Amino acid sequence: MNIISLTLWTLEHNCYYVYTVLIVFFIGFTVVHKNRLEANLNRTAATKKKLARNWNSGRERDFPDDDDPDHLVPAIPEDTPHVPYKPPQRTDEEILRRSREYYELMAQRRTVRAFSPEPIPDEVLNNIIKTAGTSPSGAHTEPWTFVVVQDQSVKEAIRTIVEEEEELNYTQRMSRQWVTDLKPFATKHIKPYLSEAPALLLVFRQTHSWRADGKKKMHYYSEVSVAIAAGILLAAIQYCGLVALTSTPLNCNARLRELLSRPVNERLELLLPVGRPHQNATVPDLSRKTLSEIMVKI
Amino acid sequence: MNIISLTLWTLEHNCYYVYTVLIVFFIGFTVVHKNRLEANLNRTAATKKKLARNWNSGRERDFPDDDDPDHLVPAIPEDTPHVPYKPPQRTDEEILRRSREYYELMAQRRTVRAFSPEPIPDEVLNNIIKTAGTSPSGAHTEPWTFVVVQDQSVKEAIRTIVEEEEELNYTQRMSRQWVTDLKPFATKHIKPYLSEAPALLLVFRQTHSWRADGKKKMHYYSEVSVAIAAGILLAAIQYCGLVALTSTPLNCNARLRELLSRPVNERLELLLPVGRPHQNATVPDLSRKTLSEIMVKI
Repeated sequence: MNIISLTLWTLEHNCYYVYTVLIVFFIGFTVVHKNRLEANLNRTAATKKKLARNWNSGRERDFPDDDDPDHLVPAIPEDTPHVPYKPPQRTDEEILRRSREYYELMAQRRTVRAFSPEPIPDEVLNNIIKTAGTSPSGAHTEPWTFVVVQDQSVKEAIRTIVEEEEELNYTQRMSRQWVTDLKPFATKHIKPYLSEAPALLLVFRQTHSWRADGKKKMHYYSEVSVAIAAGILLAAIQYCGLVALTSTPLNCNARLRELLSRPVNERLELLLPVGRPHQNATVPDLSRKTLSEIMVKI
Repeated sequence: MNIISLTLWTLEHNCYYVYTVLIVFFIGFTVVHKNRLEANLNRTAATKKKLARNWNSGRERDFPDDDDPDHLVPAIPEDTPHVPYKPPQRTDEEILRRSREYYELMAQRRTVRAFSPEPIPDEVLNNIIKTAGTSPSGAHTEPWTFVVVQDQSVKEAIRTIVEEEEELNYTQRMSRQWVTDLKPFATKHIKPYLSEAPALLLVFRQTHSWRADGKKKMHYYSEVSVAIAAGILLAAIQYCGLVALTSTPLNCNARLRELLSRPVNERLELLLPVGRPHQNATVPDLSRKTLSEIMVKI
């Protein structure tokens, strides 16, 4: 019996017990979920006290109508002057040499899952984040916040949250094909690198922000802008001689945002452990697609 | 009278003429749309003949059930060996020096809207695309195709399509606040750089692909993977001494995919003119957010 005929049958027979089962199931689900939420809150309360800070939050602000004609002022002054742009000129030979050199450097980049605990100089972290901050963004809105975690107890609290969600992801939320496709990478829900790497970089996307005049500032193309910035961040990490792991923490947004006291207009997009590779680090022996597989010339 | 009471009123009064008006409107809309589609087809037919190629298309293939237990084979061999990873070790001083050097280089990058027509060596285009191909991707699916257009008539056909859609975007599809926020950048629907830049790079995202055994290959996190690859592409363009314009061609996907004969499993995400800046190129006198505005340290 398919779903349509089942629905028709229940409607025809006025099966109140079907609705009763659904309602009971819904109440049960809510109660279970409530208990889990409370357990999580208790677990992270101690860590959160350490993180008490002034939120740059807009929770209580007004959201003026996006198209209110009385507020049609650009986020950046409309009379912003345009100035000449004269970057250093390079000859064809120089461009060619540098394009080869850069490819060779970037081709050595690999995703690493075992880190040396050796700390990274603070200025290096600052410089790679400043580099990510040079990325282009829709209407120059720069919709990113980079949270750098070096505190051991906060790294461990992040690991606890990610491992709990990943266990559910692997066993319940991801398709069996997805779990199968990840087997060659030897990934699992246990993630020691989250507490072992010297720094975790959490890349948050600001869905919007606020202007000095209190009006909501729209962030256009924030998803693609933040991911492009993450690409430039990975390039900076590789260039200076460090390694990273590009992870997308499925279903961890709400709990990690709460743990790190990020405002409601921010959403976690990527979580990158950064450091030096562990001396015993291994990587799967993969090759990349060839140029002819990824490029079409017209 | 609001829409709900209008609906109720028409239902109560059995107003067949209301439905007739809607049907006539629908037929009229379809006819108008059909004419526009035909006009577009005629306009691009000449260009398309030049582009006739073997599609790597999966249009007629089967889509086996993602979770069919008889097909649970990973896309990459499950017994892929893991090998030691020993990149060159760098001292703290070297890491620090390189992180500064790279920041200074990337901070000079600007989005440029006026290009010199001077061509780029072909190997440079190959190298920057090879570099983008070193990017990480969900389960190593490498879900990207880079289409490089240097043919003048194809560049002009692209410009025609983008300008037509952008005129509609600016006048009808984008919010007034969005159009207002773009004013400081002096962007408009006329885009001379699309026919003047020596090369256009069109970044397509493969939503999925097919394995050698004919089974559908799932591409996990393809959006973020492709945008990260675009970030690494922009870094490569900057490193070798060229400039680009990061554009997101709103509503141009179907027409550009058709023009460039890309298969139905690909979607246009970004369109980047690449080249040297025009000698009179200007950029808006913008500053970037400071480190303390984009970074939180814990």
